[in-house]
Amino acid sequence: MNTPIIPPFSDEAAKAAQRRLDSLAKVPGSLGKLEELAIQLAGITGKERPSFPHKGVVLFAADHDIALHGVSATGQEITTLQVRNFLGGGGTINAFCRNAGADLTVVDVGMKQDLDDVEGLVRRKVVHAARDFSEGPAMTRDEALACLQTGIDMAREAANRGVSLLAAGEMGIGNTSPSSAITAVLTGTPVEEVTGIGSGISPQKVQYKAELIRRGIERNQPDPADAVDVLAKVGGPEIGAMAGLMLGAAEQRIPVVVDGFIAGAAAAIAIGLHPGIRRMLVGSHASFEPGHRIIMHHIGIPTYLDLGLRLGEGTGAALLFPIIDASVRILTEMRTLEELGIAL
Amino acid sequence: MNTPIIPPFSDEAAKAAQRRLDSLAKVPGSLGKLEELAIQLAGITGKERPSFPHKGVVLFAADHDIALHGVSATGQEITTLQVRNFLGGGGTINAFCRNAGADLTVVDVGMKQDLDDVEGLVRRKVVHAARDFSEGPAMTRDEALACLQTGIDMAREAANRGVSLLAAGEMGIGNTSPSSAITAVLTGTPVEEVTGIGSGISPQKVQYKAELIRRGIERNQPDPADAVDVLAKVGGPEIGAMAGLMLGAAEQRIPVVVDGFIAGAAAAIAIGLHPGIRRMLVGSHASFEPGHRIIMHHIGIPTYLDLGLRLGEGTGAALLFPIIDASVRILTEMRTLEELGIAL
Repeated sequence: MNTPIIPPFSDEAAKAAQRRLDSLAKVPGSLGKLEELAIQLAGITGKERPSFPHKGVVLFAADHDIALHGVSATGQEITTLQVRNFLGGGGTINAFCRNAGADLTVVDVGMKQDLDDVEGLVRRKVVHAARDFSEGPAMTRDEALACLQTGIDMAREAANRGVSLLAAGEMGIGNTSPSSAITAVLTGTPVEEVTGIGSGISPQKVQYKAELIRRGIERNQPDPADAVDVLAKVGGPEIGAMAGLMLGAAEQRIPVVVDGFIAGAAAAIAIGLHPGIRRMLVGSHASFEPGHRIIMHHIGIPTYLDLGLRLGEGTGAALLFPIIDASVRILTEMRTLEELGIAL
Repeated sequence: MNTPIIPPFSDEAAKAAQRRLDSLAKVPGSLGKLEELAIQLAGITGKERPSFPHKGVVLFAADHDIALHGVSATGQEITTLQVRNFLGGGGTINAFCRNAGADLTVVDVGMKQDLDDVEGLVRRKVVHAARDFSEGPAMTRDEALACLQTGIDMAREAANRGVSLLAAGEMGIGNTSPSSAITAVLTGTPVEEVTGIGSGISPQKVQYKAELIRRGIERNQPDPADAVDVLAKVGGPEIGAMAGLMLGAAEQRIPVVVDGFIAGAAAAIAIGLHPGIRRMLVGSHASFEPGHRIIMHHIGIPTYLDLGLRLGEGTGAALLFPIIDASVRILTEMRTLEELGIAL
């Protein structure tokens, strides 16, 4: 892995933003978490008054042979169909990208099928699906590192295109299972507490899913102190690539918005590799999946939207983009108390 | 009061929107509260696929002589200074309106001072500040009705300009006190549980504020079954005007986004006048003020943003505008399962 060199969070820019917020014509702190967000964005970018004219969502697609146990509401063919749909502009993430003025990049990092006939797909396939981790490791260590590298490369490529704000999205039938496994391993929470309905399965199937995840953790014995080991043994290609995108974006001082449960698991892997990444990541929504709150609490990243989403694709992250814009407009567009002639 | 005739929520359009959502290429229900929101917007507008190209925030300004007891962090002069600031484009609500592509209308419905020298202010002053309700009624019944009428008129005026989505905002030093009083009276909750720091006062002052509110309720004996009586005795001009805006907008099938605590109290007044209004209103954020969750729970309107805001002005409501756009884009821009050749 061509490891990124990650610059420190700029306490100087964050403090300058805090001072500016306190000088504005409003009750100090009255914009709550929006002020904390603006301060964080200043610290990530190193700019007292950041702005994000060019936004991008990078969506990584992959398959998971754990899904062959029937622990998803749909089959693996849906990964392929949806990727085609995204490339044609008809998915939820397309609508939300248009809504936020963001561009969408779709990357095959581990789809079972090869989509040779479509245009616009970025082909960076590392594996033809993650292997069934209830039987053995999902990926080799080298494959996991290659997935991380794919994400790093995509962040650098986005930076070259002038993208200043990123979100990591994913499509992969079965990928709540590795996310639950990662969450259980990294937080020490019992598997049943971090396993949910995913795409919409029955309580019996949720139980069976948890059993498979437990078995996978027991067989593979991932080392919680080694994030690459966890990613390889019980993770998946798109989770590795999302973690890589976070590392690569941090190198470029580009904030990455973390979407739902799968992105949360990826953020935990990225933080495992480089703890300094934590302050470079921005949460978005609190997912319906029970494991999401647990992993976000564990990594200490707040969320802002309470929408009960459980779709993925980066949709919740894209919904935060206009709110991020609003938070930085506070820094750039408001008058100060002094300008209004108010002495408090 | 020139009472609006409020059309019923369209169950037919709501059901059509639900059917469309269930036909789309995504896991049914996976967009959670966003799907419920899209369905509600269809029911309000009577359109299976609504859209909101022209958005507006109507901000009502007023003063409250309860503030003369020192239960606010700032004096009444701030109402005037901020109204000037809004008209000059330098307030938080101005920045958030620009962010959402919404226009802002500022209405004097009860400011203590007359702002004769400024342009752009809509002059509909009913009183020169609400009277101190700890001593007697804040307004007469006729004054309360005139405030409601102002809001109704502003909704009709917005509809005439082609506005299709509205938010009610306010500026009024001291206006968390009447909002706490309304919440206590209408929900039967003890005053101390619905009284907070407002613009940022000490715990001692919060206690004194609650004492004044309790005294006001005891002296005035507002009748919880008569919303106009509650509004007149322990409410305020901008609260009445916001409630009127909600009534007038419902008449026009225009959704109104409810901002924070003061808007929540206004929504409760509007619902008291016309229970059918409830389904025509859209919540936005969960405010830092303790009374807000209580009044929103009482009127049964969900919120979507968890930002710890306590600013008012309509800021939290304006932040929901892009999310409303995203929710209706689901209905208009996504492909169906059939179009993708998926049979589930």
